[in-house]
Amino acid sequence: MNSPEINVKKESLNSVNQLDFLFKPKSIAVIGASSKELSIGNVIIKNLVHYGYTGKIYPINPKEPEIRGIKAYASIFDVPDNIDLAHVIIPSKFVPQIIEDCGKKGIKSVIINSAGFSEMGEEGIALQKAFLAKAKEYGVRIFGPNCQGIINTDPAYKAYCDFTFTFPEPGAISIVALSGGVGAFIMQSLFDLEIGMRMYASNGNACDISISDVLNYYGEDEGTKAIILYTEGFKDPREFMETAKIVSRKKPILAMKAGRTEAGAKAAASHTGSLAGVDIATELIFEKTGILAFNNEEEMCQAAMAFAAQPIPKGNRVGIITNTGGPAVIATDELVSAGLVLPALSERAINILKETMLPEASLGNPIDVVATGGGNHFRSALDVMMDEDTIDSVFINFVTAPFTDTDEVAKNIVEVNKMKRKPIVCNFMTNLSMERFQKTAKILKDGGVPCYSFPTTAAKALGALCKYHKLRSRNIGEAKKFTGIDKTKSSEIINDAKDSGKFLSSDKVYSLLSAYGIPVADWRIASDIEKTITGANEIGFPVVIKADAESLVHKSDLGGVAVNLKNADEVRAVVEKMKKNFDAEDLKFFVQKFLPGGKELIAGVSAQRDLEPLIMFGLGGIYVEVLKDVVFKIAPVTELEAKEMLSSIKASKLLDGVRGEKGIHKESVIEIIQRLSQLVTDFPEIKEVDMNPIMAFHDKAFVVDARIRM
Amino acid sequence: MNSPEINVKKESLNSVNQLDFLFKPKSIAVIGASSKELSIGNVIIKNLVHYGYTGKIYPINPKEPEIRGIKAYASIFDVPDNIDLAHVIIPSKFVPQIIEDCGKKGIKSVIINSAGFSEMGEEGIALQKAFLAKAKEYGVRIFGPNCQGIINTDPAYKAYCDFTFTFPEPGAISIVALSGGVGAFIMQSLFDLEIGMRMYASNGNACDISISDVLNYYGEDEGTKAIILYTEGFKDPREFMETAKIVSRKKPILAMKAGRTEAGAKAAASHTGSLAGVDIATELIFEKTGILAFNNEEEMCQAAMAFAAQPIPKGNRVGIITNTGGPAVIATDELVSAGLVLPALSERAINILKETMLPEASLGNPIDVVATGGGNHFRSALDVMMDEDTIDSVFINFVTAPFTDTDEVAKNIVEVNKMKRKPIVCNFMTNLSMERFQKTAKILKDGGVPCYSFPTTAAKALGALCKYHKLRSRNIGEAKKFTGIDKTKSSEIINDAKDSGKFLSSDKVYSLLSAYGIPVADWRIASDIEKTITGANEIGFPVVIKADAESLVHKSDLGGVAVNLKNADEVRAVVEKMKKNFDAEDLKFFVQKFLPGGKELIAGVSAQRDLEPLIMFGLGGIYVEVLKDVVFKIAPVTELEAKEMLSSIKASKLLDGVRGEKGIHKESVIEIIQRLSQLVTDFPEIKEVDMNPIMAFHDKAFVVDARIRM
Repeated sequence: MNSPEINVKKESLNSVNQLDFLFKPKSIAVIGASSKELSIGNVIIKNLVHYGYTGKIYPINPKEPEIRGIKAYASIFDVPDNIDLAHVIIPSKFVPQIIEDCGKKGIKSVIINSAGFSEMGEEGIALQKAFLAKAKEYGVRIFGPNCQGIINTDPAYKAYCDFTFTFPEPGAISIVALSGGVGAFIMQSLFDLEIGMRMYASNGNACDISISDVLNYYGEDEGTKAIILYTEGFKDPREFMETAKIVSRKKPILAMKAGRTEAGAKAAASHTGSLAGVDIATELIFEKTGILAFNNEEEMCQAAMAFAAQPIPKGNRVGIITNTGGPAVIATDELVSAGLVLPALSERAINILKETMLPEASLGNPIDVVATGGGNHFRSALDVMMDEDTIDSVFINFVTAPFTDTDEVAKNIVEVNKMKRKPIVCNFMTNLSMERFQKTAKILKDGGVPCYSFPTTAAKALGALCKYHKLRSRNIGEAKKFTGIDKTKSSEIINDAKDSGKFLSSDKVYSLLSAYGIPVADWRIASDIEKTITGANEIGFPVVIKADAESLVHKSDLGGVAVNLKNADEVRAVVEKMKKNFDAEDLKFFVQKFLPGGKELIAGVSAQRDLEPLIMFGLGGIYVEVLKDVVFKIAPVTELEAKEMLSSIKASKLLDGVRGEKGIHKESVIEIIQRLSQLVTDFPEIKEVDMNPIMAFHDKAFVVDARIRM
Repeated sequence: MNSPEINVKKESLNSVNQLDFLFKPKSIAVIGASSKELSIGNVIIKNLVHYGYTGKIYPINPKEPEIRGIKAYASIFDVPDNIDLAHVIIPSKFVPQIIEDCGKKGIKSVIINSAGFSEMGEEGIALQKAFLAKAKEYGVRIFGPNCQGIINTDPAYKAYCDFTFTFPEPGAISIVALSGGVGAFIMQSLFDLEIGMRMYASNGNACDISISDVLNYYGEDEGTKAIILYTEGFKDPREFMETAKIVSRKKPILAMKAGRTEAGAKAAASHTGSLAGVDIATELIFEKTGILAFNNEEEMCQAAMAFAAQPIPKGNRVGIITNTGGPAVIATDELVSAGLVLPALSERAINILKETMLPEASLGNPIDVVATGGGNHFRSALDVMMDEDTIDSVFINFVTAPFTDTDEVAKNIVEVNKMKRKPIVCNFMTNLSMERFQKTAKILKDGGVPCYSFPTTAAKALGALCKYHKLRSRNIGEAKKFTGIDKTKSSEIINDAKDSGKFLSSDKVYSLLSAYGIPVADWRIASDIEKTITGANEIGFPVVIKADAESLVHKSDLGGVAVNLKNADEVRAVVEKMKKNFDAEDLKFFVQKFLPGGKELIAGVSAQRDLEPLIMFGLGGIYVEVLKDVVFKIAPVTELEAKEMLSSIKASKLLDGVRGEKGIHKESVIEIIQRLSQLVTDFPEIKEVDMNPIMAFHDKAFVVDARIRM
């Protein structure tokens, strides 16, 4: 029982259990309940009653005998029963005392709706610290402050602990959002789309119960089939990654992070005071933890409809059935853009369709059953698609042609959908102000067919299902641990320099890289002309000479680098000149094999606050300068990820060789990236690494120049 | 009156007038009217009546005395009055005779709903030709065949000549769509968005009245404020461009072309039999004619809502007003991505806001009036934004917080909106199933405020308005006509080779380019060794030698090119070797100045069926091979367009020089592109030009190698 791993699990389990008091409260006190209509202390009680909360409500108000017809109490201590959850809607200065009271009363969780804390400067921060101390003392979990609250649509609870105005039907999607404004309109959108919702949580300042805690809770909740997450940054990215990795293996997480532009990040910072910034880290976090990322919240909600109702496809091969031409063209465009393919139908399939379809029908992929096609035509087309081994999902365009029995078509789609053999999405083009078509729509809806009003929108939703399949199928594995690393030497170098904020000298840089098995061009360090020439002779000409001193960083700009020196005389001349130009006391000469003719690559590292370092890879020279053709991953980088880095740069074809030249030795570069990742994972003291260039040849790759900052 | 320009105008006016019989019919015959419910011949009459058509309806049916209670006639000749428009819904084989009858009866326009023509192979094509001949003979204009029809919502006509099921309110947007399926759901979408519609046309096979005719008609129609166009390709791109150029100057055209992927184009071809293909030409046509292009039909419809109600902004500077934080972050991200900027507010503005806003409000851009902010807070924020000279448009996030008088907020937004000082779009986040908020929504809607349910969606709509402003402000001007062109020589070369399908020999290529003032590296053509050496001496060493014969196209692959020859001996050796390798009878030696060290560019031309040639420009070498970094424009290319070509390649920064090197002489390249455009505009016989490379230096640019195919 001493294993830390078991402890962690236990703690996390406990945490989940304690959140039951928040999401499944049997009794709720509303501290700051008010008889004033439109006040939050009134609206919350109104919402609980309106939504049919199954537990007990205790309005707390020192002056009123009852609020909205419910007996009120002057203090929580007057309440005769246990209280699972308390809303706190009182001025911020009184909150620390109330939290202590809550603790004394044995209340397990508190939603602090009141504002006036960390978002409001020094005084607010102090108040937040004060009530948090009390909460810790008494084991009270805090949700908020400055937040909306939670909703649990489970008929056993019907807990609407929130002052928003959307009253969702029970469903399978749970929402967690930092911003209440965004959370609320996502909830509204699910409501408008008639998807249904399971749970909702918007935790504002999130001083105690974090996004990760809620995510974890949703992960354990059997009623939650998929999760929608909105955030503007992470307080604790490491904690989030750990949780997200576990939860995303259990169910899809659809996520959006706002603040992706500089102006957006500024707006985010001003409204939450959070750590938001224009970062590429969030999308890397999403990628690494298997979260499906969106840039468009409408698309995310539309996709949620498909996730709520449909299985995940087993591949990216789609069959289209349509009863109108143009929308199939639009859908095809979007599906193909989303990475799906439209396989041709088998001869067997075509032969069946020849028997069953109208003569005007188009028998291919798409199958156009034409507008006069009825239920049996759709049915046959669907059966064919379901039976084709080469098809993983089905896209339907269904326009309610006035001369067709549209109900019959809908019934046939539903029958096939209920077998759940392959995911189906439907672009359903109709006029819902007409009773006749409302009936058709209801058949589809009740039958669990996700329906959209635009072919592109429907295609994007199916595209999201497929993208999630791809994300789930991608097992990045564990990062390799290379052996034979000279840890003693590395630690020595790092310890000497750590927290200096300075660049390591060239000899330390190359020693460190060598200690980690990263190939560098053969090198010597020398303090005078003769030793430099000896070094050059040992390495073999031609060589590069670099002036090396702590004060010299931009060597090449200052004439501190000379390349392609072919003999001792050339080395002597260069060293003499450098001695004249640089009068640094610690001036040394760095001699290196000159290796022309390879492809220039770059790799680097930048440390992150509260997150593992980012590893960067790209093509050197003008590619990085002009085309910004670089990719990033969060360390530790696995072999698969390192491979992806090489293949995902825009000019990746250059690595394979063009115009008859040989490609580079990718394995070497992939190994360099992984060893670099191991180095900075072992030594978080390293703030920045810049290997520029790495020269890659068809049979090897070497680091030729590198900088390391502590 | 002999000016062709005036004739064109007159004809186009006549054409517009005749389309009045189609869009503003005073009487309609339905040939093939049927008493069978759900048949097209019944639905059309039902729709006309249901929609309140103001003219006379004459069902034509040889057997029935009346249809849907309206007196029917056995033949159009039995109809006692004039007929403006006839629907034809009879088997295709009878259509030629009916069109002749229509002609005899003096019917001016016919909608042929029946299918079975050019979309159905040989027999259908013959039938289509047959009825078209009759139509021309009698001056009958044909809409269709194989089409839906038209709708005119003008209360004076209420002409619902269509079998679709959406009954739109009158509005300012007109729709023209090749595909009825897409047209119908766009119409439905405008209906669902409560935008209103002016006219609708879906013309199927479009054998006579074309998309261009309809566009032209909408252009003249005062009730049409903006046009939505959907197409899968153009029958006559030149005609379309001419019309679109004129119409887009009068009102915005929002367009979408499907078939942008290979699979999509295939689907389009199979359903319309049209000229669809994966082409870049359509987007270039849209760009050149000032049409706002969309890839997403939902976004197009959402944008239409803004175009219907709001003025076009005068620039890309936006002010955001919000009463909730997160949605403002999302909106900011999208607005910035769409090219808008958020200027800081003036001190004056901030000072006003300090007086008027709640203490929790955030006074910047965005202005956050906070959720408790009421009508007066929104009003002051709006007034401030309207008064700021640095702001061109206003984006509002309005969540209907339950504790706010939301009607009051809406009224204030509407009051400011009615002044029409700057465009306003509103992301309106509410629950429309609640009566209270329905009222608020109605205030906004009646006040002409375009409302959206998602911040990204609203931001995209405002982005479209701004993009249109940019499009309208971009005056590409007329293509330059360079003088001093040697037309005689050019014509001679072209006439010799035209329709040969062959490549011109090098001397002809360089002569032609020189005749058009396109600088080429100094060159000589020689038939033997001595003359080659003489040529080289005249040009000055170093030189390039190329083996030149009609049979040699891929010279460099075959050892037919030798570069950097420094003296007569080197030239002699090379020529001797080439004579051995190539035994072509017409073998000549092309001597050219060797010009190393410039930047390799490419430019080219590819002729298009039914369209002016496309001019291509890009960076040569691996940039075109690996990165496909090229841009296209339709000839004739104006100076502005040529400049845009240089600036719009991805690696355009390379042209300015990087790493301390000088940039290229852009003016020379811009002139080469324009002269090339003039050449291929003058000689449409040229099928292909490939100038690869153009060597560009800091002070000049030369074509070094070029191929021209006739």
